[in-house]
Amino acid sequence: MNRLSGHNYIGGARSAQGSVQLQSLDASTGQALPGHFFQATEAEVHAAAQAAASAYPLFRELGAERRAQFLDAIADELDALGDDFIATVCRETALPTARIQGERSRTSGQLRLFAKVLRRGDFLGARIDRALPQRQPLPRPDLRQYRIGVGPVAVFGASNFPLAFSTAGGDTAAALAAGCPVVFKAHSGHMATAEWVAQAIISAAQRSDMPAGVFNMIYGGGVGEWLVRHPAIRAVGFTGSLKGGNALCQMAASRAQPIPVFAEMSSINPVILLPGALATRGEQIAAELAGSVTLGAGQFCTNPGLIIGLRSPQFSAFVQQLGAQMSRQGPQTMLNHGTLASYCQGLDALHRHPGVRHLTGQPQLAGQAQPQLFQADVRLLLEGDELLQEEVFGPASIVIEVADQAELAAALQGLRGQLTATLIGEQQELLEHRWLTLALQEKVGRLLLNGYPTGVEVCDAMVHGGPYPATSDARGTSVGTLAIERFLRPVCFQNYPDALLPEALRDANPLGIVRLVDGEPSRAVL
Amino acid sequence: MNRLSGHNYIGGARSAQGSVQLQSLDASTGQALPGHFFQATEAEVHAAAQAAASAYPLFRELGAERRAQFLDAIADELDALGDDFIATVCRETALPTARIQGERSRTSGQLRLFAKVLRRGDFLGARIDRALPQRQPLPRPDLRQYRIGVGPVAVFGASNFPLAFSTAGGDTAAALAAGCPVVFKAHSGHMATAEWVAQAIISAAQRSDMPAGVFNMIYGGGVGEWLVRHPAIRAVGFTGSLKGGNALCQMAASRAQPIPVFAEMSSINPVILLPGALATRGEQIAAELAGSVTLGAGQFCTNPGLIIGLRSPQFSAFVQQLGAQMSRQGPQTMLNHGTLASYCQGLDALHRHPGVRHLTGQPQLAGQAQPQLFQADVRLLLEGDELLQEEVFGPASIVIEVADQAELAAALQGLRGQLTATLIGEQQELLEHRWLTLALQEKVGRLLLNGYPTGVEVCDAMVHGGPYPATSDARGTSVGTLAIERFLRPVCFQNYPDALLPEALRDANPLGIVRLVDGEPSRAVL
Repeated sequence: MNRLSGHNYIGGARSAQGSVQLQSLDASTGQALPGHFFQATEAEVHAAAQAAASAYPLFRELGAERRAQFLDAIADELDALGDDFIATVCRETALPTARIQGERSRTSGQLRLFAKVLRRGDFLGARIDRALPQRQPLPRPDLRQYRIGVGPVAVFGASNFPLAFSTAGGDTAAALAAGCPVVFKAHSGHMATAEWVAQAIISAAQRSDMPAGVFNMIYGGGVGEWLVRHPAIRAVGFTGSLKGGNALCQMAASRAQPIPVFAEMSSINPVILLPGALATRGEQIAAELAGSVTLGAGQFCTNPGLIIGLRSPQFSAFVQQLGAQMSRQGPQTMLNHGTLASYCQGLDALHRHPGVRHLTGQPQLAGQAQPQLFQADVRLLLEGDELLQEEVFGPASIVIEVADQAELAAALQGLRGQLTATLIGEQQELLEHRWLTLALQEKVGRLLLNGYPTGVEVCDAMVHGGPYPATSDARGTSVGTLAIERFLRPVCFQNYPDALLPEALRDANPLGIVRLVDGEPSRAVL
Repeated sequence: MNRLSGHNYIGGARSAQGSVQLQSLDASTGQALPGHFFQATEAEVHAAAQAAASAYPLFRELGAERRAQFLDAIADELDALGDDFIATVCRETALPTARIQGERSRTSGQLRLFAKVLRRGDFLGARIDRALPQRQPLPRPDLRQYRIGVGPVAVFGASNFPLAFSTAGGDTAAALAAGCPVVFKAHSGHMATAEWVAQAIISAAQRSDMPAGVFNMIYGGGVGEWLVRHPAIRAVGFTGSLKGGNALCQMAASRAQPIPVFAEMSSINPVILLPGALATRGEQIAAELAGSVTLGAGQFCTNPGLIIGLRSPQFSAFVQQLGAQMSRQGPQTMLNHGTLASYCQGLDALHRHPGVRHLTGQPQLAGQAQPQLFQADVRLLLEGDELLQEEVFGPASIVIEVADQAELAAALQGLRGQLTATLIGEQQELLEHRWLTLALQEKVGRLLLNGYPTGVEVCDAMVHGGPYPATSDARGTSVGTLAIERFLRPVCFQNYPDALLPEALRDANPLGIVRLVDGEPSRAVL
């Protein structure tokens, strides 16, 4: 089963009707890897969407336990993939083995956590308002609400996490958990990896007796538009560039039936340093921050791209220390040549900007990314300069010095929406700067204290989202169990007999879940 | 205080900078009523959005109990409005006094229910994953999530419910409950009513010591676009036509920072009649259904516009009975001349369609709407004919006969998204037609058994939403407490000390709310 075919996966079967064949590249050498991948034709894209649509009513009605078993089975299949698989991912992405192994564990762990949520049942959002036949002036009918999947979901994976944000990543797991079949558009940066993972999912689907079409995968450039415009697709999940995300949102909004898009796009993840912390542990912060900026060649969505401090001798010393720490970081191979080219373009723009000064970093050499540190005038933030707010995807960061708290407050007002913001401070000064937490809440999905934003825990409380342009919809998250809710919608049953209600809403509460009954949370049998 | 000024309300003060003055019309006579309303200038629209933006951080941080007191105060102010107010609404809408009194109770009841939800605290969505410092390979930090308002919300009220879906209606109540200040665009159909209600809200805001700008109201045609495009506005609530809702969605999607729109638009609310029910109580169903079709001059969003039955002698008899019942309903005055003109246009299109036959109804006379019943070929549904699916807003309905269950299933597949679908059947045949409930779930927000869709209970379990074009986003509802969630977004705190956390997330659980702690719902003190 694990020999790569390079075919699309449609309705559980392989399909290669097109004449365009693509090759995957070795991320370190840029050389084509063996094997070809068949770009999907328009007919194949439609067939994939249609397969998902046919699977939808069957998959939805299977119930949460069966879907949980499917997610667990995918996790098991993923974990069972051998060294060949890991080697493939490493070749396609230039990411180190340990990182890929860790990312695989995170991906299967996420699937198992979502299975747990399915069994817990809170995602169902069960609400029951019982009839009040004696109410005046009018009786109240019996009303019961739960949530179902919105329908087939198109998922576009990211290049930077070839497992955790790709084929079986957060968006796929969330959609499947919600009861939505998936059509996955494989990323051109890791097509072989995508096929390994797709095989694992298909195999799990067969073992778990899922409907054919519960998961489909298509290859190719430009085929995504056919997918997003297909009437059977009811929502889109995307992780990638601002430009790509915006394009998908526009496509989705201009359909005859507009659909929601959750696009996780661009964030510069400001870190704000308070003077007390710099005085007591500036050197340590410089080392840790340099590590966070350069982690994974700076290719994390939550990479700290903006470092803000209050003018002081401590901050000046810190900037020196940070520069020294950044200089010590070696060059790194990026995911692919396109990513490296984008990084170089971003650096060029910073070099050319009159309000930005280069602090440290070796000149770029062909093939690898050198860490870079810049300093920018605060007026760029105050005036809303676009350049400063554009994510430079790679191991670079920008330092900004503000005169005082008032200027800090004004500068933060100038920030666009972010995935994260981080405060580094001592206990007492953090309490004195309570206003910072209040102000930053408006801008971000996650606030961190005395930590670093690279590192996104998969759990119930995580938010990996935030106001535009961090995402296209601040009401969602693409990491953590709340991610499932993006693909759910409520349905209400009025005056329904028990026998026709879904299990979640029956009097006997056969799922044993917590429900909101007449305004009170309860596991009671009614 | 209750003398009408016709001014806009911005930041708690009156404003009338524009030169365009509008007049409200008596809905029965079409004559201009005394008094003038000042169309907002672009500067005033911006000032209103800015006032809401200034109020937002203050309002958000007041806490749920203070916001609950505010909602209760609005409810009290509304209930205290006297006969003059009721007379004003009746004059502007031609709706009868009893209907307006009932709608006022519903509107204040909705505000009080939302206040209860604020005190209950489940809207906060509190989730806590405690630190796991010993976890291998990496420790887990402490992560806590709750939900805050998205920011200032623009609300566009409907003409058909001048209280419950207007100035202090569901969208305003939901936004305020979520902690979002509101800029309300008054409907041209009831500008005096809007000012009475706005005064009640402003008065409640002052009594409750709310920040100025928590509620703002602007008058005028075409001013909505300035509002939706203003960068301070973060979400839009709308109830009205498909055309109007689509236009708002396009505006919102083309902003520099796109924002979500919840638009409740168009629904024909199919009713499916099963043979057993027609055999045992066809006459009664005909009478009840005629009442539902003509209720409120057919101006309910959930008006049953499509009645589907299986070919049989019972169904033929039923169509006769329904026609007779519809003939017995007298003409009714509609909300305004525009609504009546739209109704007549909709009827004309049905009369002209070769696949539609007129069954019963008096010719339209100037000034009032006559109930009308049509019959359409099932092929119009099977072929997705647009005309059939367009809401004819008024006391009209269309009957469709299907040959058998297979044709019924195919016809339902052709339906667009709906607010409601209704099944009328006897106990046993409903169980035999379980597939109907499964199929209709994909199409609607609410399923009713042996009831009529006109009548939308305000409670936790209600869904007044559904797939496009019923609404612009099937994941929301504009009636019931779930409506609040449309205007909330999650924020996560990582590694935060108790003293800096919002009350909802503190160890001591000072709000006493249910929280998801390490995956288990709990009111525990940590």
